[in-house]
Amino acid sequence: MLQTMSTAFIRTLREDPADAEVASHRLLVRAAYVRRTAPGIYTWLPLGLAVLRKIEGIIRDEMNRIGAQEVHFAALQPAEPYKDSHRWDEYGPTLFRLKDRKDGDYLLAPTHEEMFTLLAKDLLSSYKDLPTALYQIQTKYRDEARPRAGIIRGRQFIMKDSYSFDIDDDGLEASYQRHRAAYERIFTRLGLEYVPVNAMAGAMGGSRSEEFLHPSPVGEDTFVRSVGGYAANAEAVITPVPDPVDASEVPPALVVDTPDCPTIDALVDLLNTEHPRADRPWSAADTLKNIVVTLTWPDGTKELLVVGLPGDREVDIKRLEAAVSPAEVAMAEEGDFAGHPELVRGYIGPTAVGPNAPSRRVETGEDGREVLVGSVRYLLDPRVVDGTSWVAGANAPGQHVLHLVRGRDFEADGTIEAAEVRAGDPAPDGSGPLEIARGIELGHIFTLGRKYSDALGFTVLDENGKARTVTMGSYGIGVSRVMAALAEVNCDEHGLAWPIQVAPYQVQVLATGKDEEVFSTAASLAAELDLAGLEVLYDDRRKVSAGVKFADSELLGVPFTVIVGRDLAQAGTVEIRDRRSGERRSVPVETAVAEIRSTVAAALEAAPTGEGL
Amino acid sequence: MLQTMSTAFIRTLREDPADAEVASHRLLVRAAYVRRTAPGIYTWLPLGLAVLRKIEGIIRDEMNRIGAQEVHFAALQPAEPYKDSHRWDEYGPTLFRLKDRKDGDYLLAPTHEEMFTLLAKDLLSSYKDLPTALYQIQTKYRDEARPRAGIIRGRQFIMKDSYSFDIDDDGLEASYQRHRAAYERIFTRLGLEYVPVNAMAGAMGGSRSEEFLHPSPVGEDTFVRSVGGYAANAEAVITPVPDPVDASEVPPALVVDTPDCPTIDALVDLLNTEHPRADRPWSAADTLKNIVVTLTWPDGTKELLVVGLPGDREVDIKRLEAAVSPAEVAMAEEGDFAGHPELVRGYIGPTAVGPNAPSRRVETGEDGREVLVGSVRYLLDPRVVDGTSWVAGANAPGQHVLHLVRGRDFEADGTIEAAEVRAGDPAPDGSGPLEIARGIELGHIFTLGRKYSDALGFTVLDENGKARTVTMGSYGIGVSRVMAALAEVNCDEHGLAWPIQVAPYQVQVLATGKDEEVFSTAASLAAELDLAGLEVLYDDRRKVSAGVKFADSELLGVPFTVIVGRDLAQAGTVEIRDRRSGERRSVPVETAVAEIRSTVAAALEAAPTGEGL
Repeated sequence: MLQTMSTAFIRTLREDPADAEVASHRLLVRAAYVRRTAPGIYTWLPLGLAVLRKIEGIIRDEMNRIGAQEVHFAALQPAEPYKDSHRWDEYGPTLFRLKDRKDGDYLLAPTHEEMFTLLAKDLLSSYKDLPTALYQIQTKYRDEARPRAGIIRGRQFIMKDSYSFDIDDDGLEASYQRHRAAYERIFTRLGLEYVPVNAMAGAMGGSRSEEFLHPSPVGEDTFVRSVGGYAANAEAVITPVPDPVDASEVPPALVVDTPDCPTIDALVDLLNTEHPRADRPWSAADTLKNIVVTLTWPDGTKELLVVGLPGDREVDIKRLEAAVSPAEVAMAEEGDFAGHPELVRGYIGPTAVGPNAPSRRVETGEDGREVLVGSVRYLLDPRVVDGTSWVAGANAPGQHVLHLVRGRDFEADGTIEAAEVRAGDPAPDGSGPLEIARGIELGHIFTLGRKYSDALGFTVLDENGKARTVTMGSYGIGVSRVMAALAEVNCDEHGLAWPIQVAPYQVQVLATGKDEEVFSTAASLAAELDLAGLEVLYDDRRKVSAGVKFADSELLGVPFTVIVGRDLAQAGTVEIRDRRSGERRSVPVETAVAEIRSTVAAALEAAPTGEGL
Repeated sequence: MLQTMSTAFIRTLREDPADAEVASHRLLVRAAYVRRTAPGIYTWLPLGLAVLRKIEGIIRDEMNRIGAQEVHFAALQPAEPYKDSHRWDEYGPTLFRLKDRKDGDYLLAPTHEEMFTLLAKDLLSSYKDLPTALYQIQTKYRDEARPRAGIIRGRQFIMKDSYSFDIDDDGLEASYQRHRAAYERIFTRLGLEYVPVNAMAGAMGGSRSEEFLHPSPVGEDTFVRSVGGYAANAEAVITPVPDPVDASEVPPALVVDTPDCPTIDALVDLLNTEHPRADRPWSAADTLKNIVVTLTWPDGTKELLVVGLPGDREVDIKRLEAAVSPAEVAMAEEGDFAGHPELVRGYIGPTAVGPNAPSRRVETGEDGREVLVGSVRYLLDPRVVDGTSWVAGANAPGQHVLHLVRGRDFEADGTIEAAEVRAGDPAPDGSGPLEIARGIELGHIFTLGRKYSDALGFTVLDENGKARTVTMGSYGIGVSRVMAALAEVNCDEHGLAWPIQVAPYQVQVLATGKDEEVFSTAASLAAELDLAGLEVLYDDRRKVSAGVKFADSELLGVPFTVIVGRDLAQAGTVEIRDRRSGERRSVPVETAVAEIRSTVAAALEAAPTGEGL
């Protein structure tokens, strides 16, 4: 449909909005694509809605292609199913909760796993009904503590969520792969660079998951990748375990005085002065740092845990949390040490904890199973392999131990992925050193398994007429966030520059000057292009300078602009500008419509198709 | 896209759902168009979503045609704008309210007048930006006390709401008429009978409004219409005022004893026995009934009001409420009579109230204006004109007055539309007697005027550079309710029977029997029709009987069904059935695709266009 600029519900802003930190936010507000109504809550203006519809169209297309069927749930849902799945509590303050007039508990769904499970349970009853995949494109609500960056992280956002239902794990794997391929086609068609990274499933439950990250400096997710193709988010990186070391030449453990060494640097300096080593100086990497944390389990029980890791690595609390999920992690505080005189703060060594502690013993619990008691659990970084030698606390103030060898002098209850991942660390799959990058999470795919079908009692009859619990997958795309990512990479200092497959209009016709002939020519050009089925915005404003029109045009980012101006009278030509390449060319006004049509057709033809993915 | 029945997310039910009172609810659930998740909250299944999309498409088309531009608001909105407009309080328990994690007040928008006003205020600043019309198609939330009839009255429903912004009343009138015409085209294109009725604007404010009612026995709105074309909802009917009557022959007022007359019937019986009238017997229509109600104004002040009306008419509380809006109305109770000894319950007569009361006097209020005090306000039904003669209470227990003449013996403070409207009453415009009907409210259009722009400070600069408050209109269509109305009128005892312009599929191909040839022919027919751009559902189920397939087909209501069965081998033919007309014809399989294409094309061609409206 032909839209004239004089009547369009567009008001461009010359100034950046005060609260905008990132380019997409600045430009989408300035160019009148979105407006904020409350923190993290945005309104879609006509231009934004047009882009959103095109993104949704590509997603819908690929979902339909893998046989997923579209449904639509209300955002407002009763609490019961979410109580049954425990997410009513697990979601914490992020969940918008409310009461109805009869005091019933309701929520604004953050995602719809429970509702989809119940719907599928209602309609599907036999293995013959499987596999089934359902999806919706819908507004979701999450009361984020820190909504940021405009529509990148809102409290209200548009999401495509889909769910697969299968009779067994092989079926789930096939459904997962179909979705994975669809996601690759979607992001390819949108022209968005993406990296599928291994991810922890987190609060969603389930055993396997990948995030589709768009590498971007404004992203809030940290991920790693190697030149050889490995990629994972930081939480999911598994440290390659080195081979054991021959420790036969290591001197016996030696306790030394280390007064006034509050930091590892001070300790290393003291060792290099007082106990210099022949082959090379001591470094932080020679020390074994022991960190005490508290774990709080969902049933409320608390546990102390000691984590040992090389002194040159920091603890990454998100990796640690992912490793002990669903426990919550906090650094131990003063009071947590009560009743643990063996933990000498600042001088904790391996021999006071875990299996090394003299107090450690095996008891038989109430349920008949053996439990370890008498000492705090001790987990080690995977790099601390047998035969490695360390400097560690001596469990007495002002003293450390040298030459403490794992396997000879101490043991652990296991290993834990709690240390930060650093650029240059080897990729787990041997594909080279890792680099650290930031990304925007565009999509996330999970194998949920039977978490929700178990909680909500969803079984179907198998070939033998026996009830079998259905296994599920869950697949999300942040549709509004995809639009922000597209804006981030399709802009320059003048404004937005949309690729044709998501542009709100394909062509903008722009009339400059005051010449009546110019305006009538521009109007009929616009009308002809509209008639030819193109999506046309016509800047017909009379009292606006050419400079303002050009600036608005570059800000809005329509791919192709036809400028009708003084060249019309002088040379009988109009100018076609390509917003993305900057290319300009003059064409005779008589052939302008044909030229623009073939230019748009060529651009559409050149847009990525995702075929072969 | 071609959908096979074996994989479709459809599960038909043979039994009516227990909670379904009306045909649309029964059939939309049984045919798997919608499912309930909580009272008044429904999920759209693939078939329902397909119909919904087509309805939305027609609405969008006509909105775009009148130049309205589409935007999209979140359902979740901050409370402040709704507090500024007083609707935060006025909506009462119907509003879903909630808190965010920072204890801020939020709501789920029942409609978006406030947000549209603020958005337009943000983007529009000059008379040159007007007129502007904006719309959205969106899920709305209202915590109805009695959600009913499936999607006819839900607590969550899909609504198209639009808003017009004009510089003056002439502009508003033009915007109103454009919307009115668009609504006529929309309902015509949908094939839905509609009656535009005059309506009171109610809680929306504003001075003019029309409802688009779809006459239906399951509708919850009562309206009246005359053969001559008058139509209004009951609240909006204005009683034609009879000419004054010559009362010169009426005898003087006469107090009579009327013991043991608790009802009007008993009074009439007593009069006919004790005080028979020469020309005709007394009837209830000769009595003047005086009803005492309390009005509670928004500022909390309460007022007693006496309403006088002919004894053969009941008070219609909805009409009375509409007449005294925004006051709330309740029948007076025992306690309300305290301090009013002149109101003798059961025997209240005109001479104790209003201007007739000896205690009535004029005082000058604090603001300098004259106010009437000393007696309760008295309003009369418009039929009680000068010269009419009545039997009324004598303000003393067990006594009534005969021959009480308005204008001679008593006066009133004014008239009020509080009496029920009855079939046979004359239309206000003289277009004949009224009939009473029930309807489903499909749409509602209002002139809001400056209620919201005043409350939220929305002005633009006029031609002289002076700030002028913008005048607004508000226009709604209940999209999901439209679907229910369509289902109500497009069904029979076997199921749904959609008109082609809103059908979820245009054609269903149905294979019967076990013959492999039948299934391969049906599959290729379905594929060819799909390739030709038709919307095809193919019932490819192998282990389902022909009877079940026919029953499902009739339940789903796809307009045309192609049956491939035993006639294929015997005669080389397939059967085409028209679900709506019941017509069946056999066609050679070779020409079947061409036949169906032309049948569908003819049906689309024959669908109403709304042109000329």
